[in-house]
Amino acid sequence: MRRRIIGQPKILKRLTIHILQSKDLEYHWHPGTPLKDLRRTPPFIVTKASGSYIEGIDGHRVIDGISSWWCKTLGHNHPRLKSALIEQINKFEHVINATSTNQILVDLSALLVSLVPGMGKVFYASDGSSAVEISLKMSLHSRLNQGNQTKIKFLSLANGYHGETCGALSITHTGKFKKAYHPMLFDCLAIEGIPYTNTPNNDLWHSCQDHWLKIQDFLQKHHHEITAIIVEPIVQGAGNMKIYSQDFLRRLRTWTTEHDIHLIADEIMTGIGRTGKMFACEHANITPDFMCLSKGLTSGWLPFSCVLTTNDIYNCFYDKIGQDEVFYHSHTHSGNVLGACLALETLKIMTEDFDWSELNEKATYLLNSMHDIADESKVLSNVRGIGMIAAADINQEAFSLERMNEMIHIAFQNGALLRPLGKTVYWLPPLNIENKTIDELKEITKKSIVYAFKKET
Amino acid sequence: MRRRIIGQPKILKRLTIHILQSKDLEYHWHPGTPLKDLRRTPPFIVTKASGSYIEGIDGHRVIDGISSWWCKTLGHNHPRLKSALIEQINKFEHVINATSTNQILVDLSALLVSLVPGMGKVFYASDGSSAVEISLKMSLHSRLNQGNQTKIKFLSLANGYHGETCGALSITHTGKFKKAYHPMLFDCLAIEGIPYTNTPNNDLWHSCQDHWLKIQDFLQKHHHEITAIIVEPIVQGAGNMKIYSQDFLRRLRTWTTEHDIHLIADEIMTGIGRTGKMFACEHANITPDFMCLSKGLTSGWLPFSCVLTTNDIYNCFYDKIGQDEVFYHSHTHSGNVLGACLALETLKIMTEDFDWSELNEKATYLLNSMHDIADESKVLSNVRGIGMIAAADINQEAFSLERMNEMIHIAFQNGALLRPLGKTVYWLPPLNIENKTIDELKEITKKSIVYAFKKET
Repeated sequence: MRRRIIGQPKILKRLTIHILQSKDLEYHWHPGTPLKDLRRTPPFIVTKASGSYIEGIDGHRVIDGISSWWCKTLGHNHPRLKSALIEQINKFEHVINATSTNQILVDLSALLVSLVPGMGKVFYASDGSSAVEISLKMSLHSRLNQGNQTKIKFLSLANGYHGETCGALSITHTGKFKKAYHPMLFDCLAIEGIPYTNTPNNDLWHSCQDHWLKIQDFLQKHHHEITAIIVEPIVQGAGNMKIYSQDFLRRLRTWTTEHDIHLIADEIMTGIGRTGKMFACEHANITPDFMCLSKGLTSGWLPFSCVLTTNDIYNCFYDKIGQDEVFYHSHTHSGNVLGACLALETLKIMTEDFDWSELNEKATYLLNSMHDIADESKVLSNVRGIGMIAAADINQEAFSLERMNEMIHIAFQNGALLRPLGKTVYWLPPLNIENKTIDELKEITKKSIVYAFKKET
Repeated sequence: MRRRIIGQPKILKRLTIHILQSKDLEYHWHPGTPLKDLRRTPPFIVTKASGSYIEGIDGHRVIDGISSWWCKTLGHNHPRLKSALIEQINKFEHVINATSTNQILVDLSALLVSLVPGMGKVFYASDGSSAVEISLKMSLHSRLNQGNQTKIKFLSLANGYHGETCGALSITHTGKFKKAYHPMLFDCLAIEGIPYTNTPNNDLWHSCQDHWLKIQDFLQKHHHEITAIIVEPIVQGAGNMKIYSQDFLRRLRTWTTEHDIHLIADEIMTGIGRTGKMFACEHANITPDFMCLSKGLTSGWLPFSCVLTTNDIYNCFYDKIGQDEVFYHSHTHSGNVLGACLALETLKIMTEDFDWSELNEKATYLLNSMHDIADESKVLSNVRGIGMIAAADINQEAFSLERMNEMIHIAFQNGALLRPLGKTVYWLPPLNIENKTIDELKEITKKSIVYAFKKET
């Protein structure tokens, strides 16, 4: 397989690419990547992006198979988002929102609250980690403001991931992100024995009674000291795209309500349509006490996040003036209007001009495409999917890290940006990816998997 | 004193304002503010902002006396920043930068590294707190990658502030931001006895020998367990705009180097010209091991931050592939190109087209204006300033929280947005504020202070 470059780059272009790549590696520390790997496979120099495609300076086009770390919900360069942003830039850009507001923020706040039954207020930040930390801080602080000094611990799910700052990392349970930082993290117990399921089409999805009884035993031991339980509803992203029973989430909500424990829904990856519903909580028909949104909220244009919460929580702070009682969390860009206008336009598209039944057909098409690869390659197992997420694991006997890196490299050369998680290959493309692009993504993924993993098997 | 409204708003406009304010308060949880205060003084509805001014829907204009939480370095609506952003939007918006890059990020990284001698690499994030947490994580993780398990603690300055997420909050020492969250924070010792000074024009600024000897005694007791010391160089912002001796920073750098301890410079507020030099570290002629930048980096247009560090730190991670050794911090919007293009243009303006001697004249003018208010009002003491920061404290006998709130309210009605810190009134306007606007700011501040604090004195 050869790199599909449109025309052979001239010497000058090749020199430009070489200079840019060298200069980039000299000064730019890329996130989330073994650094030496970037010397072997130098960074792709992006010059364009549109819809589901990213294009490089050499004319090479790749499908953004992971929506640029799960955020480009409506793809790149969406014309309505572009217009909304430029329109706002021509009015005004960021102004401190501690004591000010504007039409965009008012409309966005009202729309967000209207989308999640039971929610009352929106607090804005910039990234997902901050949103998670705000929800943790609000939960703990609300207890103290109510005179409760015993509910001071957090519980999360085994295999969960919630971000990279110390609070978000403390409640994260995927080891590779946190192991080095233990002296900086607080202890957090994890709920084990989660009822995982590959799709919503099985019994466990509808009822997880056996799993629940064991989980409930564990919960009962700790409920007096817990202020909140945080979950990625339905899908655990960084923990290898695992899908769990909606019945578990439903039971957990019931149990937390009964025991006066807050439920925090980290919908940073799952929110804004990713699982086939606007929010993954809707699969279980539940309302959390806090919902954290980011990534897809601006369709991945700008860092922008928010925490939705109830008026009950807000009222724990409402009439407080003491230094220890006010929620002083002071995020510089809280409510940045450029992010806010993109969030508002994204939500308008999703609520007014989005074909949800088409999305669900596309989701089936995506999952079936992953099944096809499993059937044809014979090296994939545990095919799973919900909404616009499809995943599968490379069989243990075929897997090695070197082969996976080779697979990524070949896929990229052939036109698809993939970033597997451990043994898990997954797709998480823009929601509006065309079926013919899914076909292309499937062919590239299949060829790359076969090439990398079938060599000696 | 009456509200200076250009023309009396018609009934319809007043109704619109009332509806927007009510809707805002119904759904929007504003940051860093006692919530009930917003019912008494409803949020200002912003419709325009330009240079040093913010304008409301009622035509009321206020001077942004605090650069919208210290970030609008070049003021609002700067034409070159606006053009740079729109130009980039017309090319492409955010693409994952884990394994990609682009011309803007390459140029920005190279320029940033060139501005701080000794730095080698730039890692990007979105907000100041994340930048601080990244520097802490890199410092600790680099020790582990070198096989050092004992240097696992952090030290910071008494009265310091570094952000709102749990890691940044753990090393913050201003109590009001952290007291409620102790179960989530790690322990951090603080250096006391900092040699504060009101301006660079005194002996303590040049030599702090006596203070240093005591501080050194304290440091010597802990150096074996410390991986890094974090400071806001020269000015502690949220800790009431306190200025300290450059000689202390210089000695601290020498001592940390001798004891193999990293020095982290949190230049989130001080960087990009605020103190009269590009970075506050330049006052002491030192290079830290990590420098955190945000706020002014994009001139406050977008959430965008970075950590500059040395090649020595980078090399601790360079050839690592083990799960516990790779720096997996995976920030979705790391290197967001829209933020990056604004940072690049801000730095181009500051390095190529900025009159630094004019800035320093303006700084003197700003500080003298605060002195004038102190002389005339007789209720201010401890007037201090450096670069485009001027501050003073309301005398203890005149101060009350109610009076300060009244002062803020009157200043706003008369055309100036101020946000005092405890007893400290300060100005931190855009660097390019005009002198006549400083005059206006001074008159409004003076009248408001006299009105609120001289009533019964």
